[in-house]
Amino acid sequence: MNTSEFRRRGKEMVDYVANYMEGIEGRQVYPDVEPGYLRPLIPDSAPQEPDTFEDIINDIEKIIMPGVTHWHSPYFFAYFPTASSYPAMLADMLCGAIGCIGFSWAASPACTELETVMMDWLGKMLELPKAFLTENAGEGGGVIQGSASEATLVALLAARTKAIHRLQAASPELTQAAIMEKLVAYSSDQAHSSVERAGLIGGVKLKAIPSDGNFAMRASALQEALERDRAAGLIPFFVSSAALVAPGNKEDMWLHVDAAYAGSAFICPEFRHLLNGVEFADSFNFNPHKWLLVNFDCSAMWVKKRSDLTGAFRLDPTYLKHSHQDSGKLFRSLKMWFVFRMYGVKGLQAYIRKHVQLSHEFESLVLQDPRFEICAEVTLGLVCFRLKGSNKVNEALLQRINSAKKIHLVPCHLRDKFVLRFAICSRTVESAHVQRAWEHIKELAADVLQAERE
Amino acid sequence: MNTSEFRRRGKEMVDYVANYMEGIEGRQVYPDVEPGYLRPLIPDSAPQEPDTFEDIINDIEKIIMPGVTHWHSPYFFAYFPTASSYPAMLADMLCGAIGCIGFSWAASPACTELETVMMDWLGKMLELPKAFLTENAGEGGGVIQGSASEATLVALLAARTKAIHRLQAASPELTQAAIMEKLVAYSSDQAHSSVERAGLIGGVKLKAIPSDGNFAMRASALQEALERDRAAGLIPFFVSSAALVAPGNKEDMWLHVDAAYAGSAFICPEFRHLLNGVEFADSFNFNPHKWLLVNFDCSAMWVKKRSDLTGAFRLDPTYLKHSHQDSGKLFRSLKMWFVFRMYGVKGLQAYIRKHVQLSHEFESLVLQDPRFEICAEVTLGLVCFRLKGSNKVNEALLQRINSAKKIHLVPCHLRDKFVLRFAICSRTVESAHVQRAWEHIKELAADVLQAERE
Repeated sequence: MNTSEFRRRGKEMVDYVANYMEGIEGRQVYPDVEPGYLRPLIPDSAPQEPDTFEDIINDIEKIIMPGVTHWHSPYFFAYFPTASSYPAMLADMLCGAIGCIGFSWAASPACTELETVMMDWLGKMLELPKAFLTENAGEGGGVIQGSASEATLVALLAARTKAIHRLQAASPELTQAAIMEKLVAYSSDQAHSSVERAGLIGGVKLKAIPSDGNFAMRASALQEALERDRAAGLIPFFVSSAALVAPGNKEDMWLHVDAAYAGSAFICPEFRHLLNGVEFADSFNFNPHKWLLVNFDCSAMWVKKRSDLTGAFRLDPTYLKHSHQDSGKLFRSLKMWFVFRMYGVKGLQAYIRKHVQLSHEFESLVLQDPRFEICAEVTLGLVCFRLKGSNKVNEALLQRINSAKKIHLVPCHLRDKFVLRFAICSRTVESAHVQRAWEHIKELAADVLQAERE
Repeated sequence: MNTSEFRRRGKEMVDYVANYMEGIEGRQVYPDVEPGYLRPLIPDSAPQEPDTFEDIINDIEKIIMPGVTHWHSPYFFAYFPTASSYPAMLADMLCGAIGCIGFSWAASPACTELETVMMDWLGKMLELPKAFLTENAGEGGGVIQGSASEATLVALLAARTKAIHRLQAASPELTQAAIMEKLVAYSSDQAHSSVERAGLIGGVKLKAIPSDGNFAMRASALQEALERDRAAGLIPFFVSSAALVAPGNKEDMWLHVDAAYAGSAFICPEFRHLLNGVEFADSFNFNPHKWLLVNFDCSAMWVKKRSDLTGAFRLDPTYLKHSHQDSGKLFRSLKMWFVFRMYGVKGLQAYIRKHVQLSHEFESLVLQDPRFEICAEVTLGLVCFRLKGSNKVNEALLQRINSAKKIHLVPCHLRDKFVLRFAICSRTVESAHVQRAWEHIKELAADVLQAERE
């Protein structure tokens, strides 16, 4: 494909994308296909001679779209939002064209520098403590990661390296393995399984700390665990928490705060208090690619000491000259730049507030129906609800909802309860969609309750 | 930005991208900026009110482009190629619009299924042993990773889990830490530092094995190391190698073959022999995002037993229902599908052959000049060369090349020698560019040698 054909096909693709977005409400949010549907529809090996672009674009509707779960449909209320906005898509087109791999300053100065400045912009939007910013030549700074899981792993490994160095400095006879055997990381029992996986990868123990009524880690429970483990000769070194805890003997512990979804809301003054205490953290992370209109992937991580990261990964400068270098990253900060500028802070705040308002609207609909209950405080864009009654009846309700495929939800377990999650996800979801979704849920609930009585 | 504005701006961006690609040869390949250039050019915080698209697009040329290293310029011969093609860019636009996070089949069936089939297509292009393919319901299969480093880490962690399980099954009293202390991984002394980093993350020893005259791991040296380490009570469990080695006591070792750059060439029958022996490997990886026209990121990894990966990461099915799930992946296989179909296997082979031919053309130019020497056999798209003489004179030559900024190269060290690397990178590089680059290098070499004599 030469450049003039790209001009033509690129514009056709822009229209295809625009049509997809405009028509997404008319598509069934969850597909009808069964596992294995795709393989029989396409050849079993690549063609020797080129196919035409027309063939491919036709196959999108014939082969791909029938198997797509439409995450950006206004009837998608499952999982969490994943960001999508036109400014980010435009930035991605430019990013693909520049196509630099920014593993060092020289590999593309603009890539490295814009990322640093955008992380400062974003940090200021959140009113992060100055210690996390790069400007004014402090020790802290931000970096874009691929996901919150990656950020958690990076933080845990940095903490592990720091703990090993500290203990070996005090007792040079200790081997790394002898220390690792005693290291313990902690997270809330409601925490992201990514913490569990980070512990597994890092080869350290991970302990779950009981959470309180709002499913946040209980500070007293953490304190008890720390005392018990220290008495048993173990070495607490890392806490990952969604809410803020400032454990007693903080000095030897790395505190990582993971606000993957909620973090975007902290750009609104009325939600900023949820981040209070971040000044005690060593690292903080959230995902603009969830709720801040910056398309995947863009997970924002800040640390108080940049040298903790470079120390852990032993990024020798000569490495950066190495011919086999490949662990690169694209020019991801362009997406932040386009989105922040084309929405403005006020536009982004308005977007967050609209979603929060829609979740409260759904909450009040649930509360008006005595058959239902709300299962956790609604603070941002997520409503956890269920039919009063058994898990079985709620499982049956969810199954009906997802079989009808008019809307899409996923469940979660809160303690022993099977709970339905209604997450405000799509950029284009409006009150009318929420109302329609609730009418639909009520009808199916009536069927389920009727079936149960029979 | 609403959809109709996106239609307009998207098309303008297509033209901007096309103009950038068409004019890239006229841009200076390496920028003039100094570290810190960008921050003073932009505000120190995000705007409260939206900026216009015109403001942003104007800033691209004013602020971004002056700091870009143009990886797709035909005068870029540094590092390694990073793939760029129009079909992949079109696929990326679609991928951004669908914007699904494919962490489970249900999260987007087409995403999961197309990836599986595309990895089979690609495996067949390489004539990988059937054991690595998913079709015919075998135990093996391919998965897209973000980079070769990530693939190496995944393989090392899977091998570690397997080794720990095996040893604990035989001796239940052994702790994980006691085993990890004895585990040893091996790689060539010329290997990617990513292996070193994987060892560091995984908390296991890594030993470098001396390489032979072609900078590949010497099988006899590996065998000696294995015997010596086993005699010392250590437990060899993992070998990462670019070339193929089939160690004696293979049964207890995981063999990972990393052909990050070279792998793309194996779609040509005349280069496939370089992959002979892959049948002994447990995992194999290469980067279509380097040399197979599939834009970053797309690193292709195959394993003989898919369950080794799921076992290592304990991917419990209930995890996939978990509300905090975020370690997703985009619809990256769309890029493979577009590229494989729009080039066809023959088109891809022709592309590889053109690059290899250009590197041989450069090699023969170097060989015609008695002041220069070739430092390693030229097999694919990379020529390692230097002025006969001291490292100092070669450092001076490289410095002149990169200060002149007509072409861009990076060096490497082969044993004690400072060597210049001439890598065929750009999709649009032609014989004329190589010839011009050589004339330029010769002129600067004459200056350097003249300066040395004075």
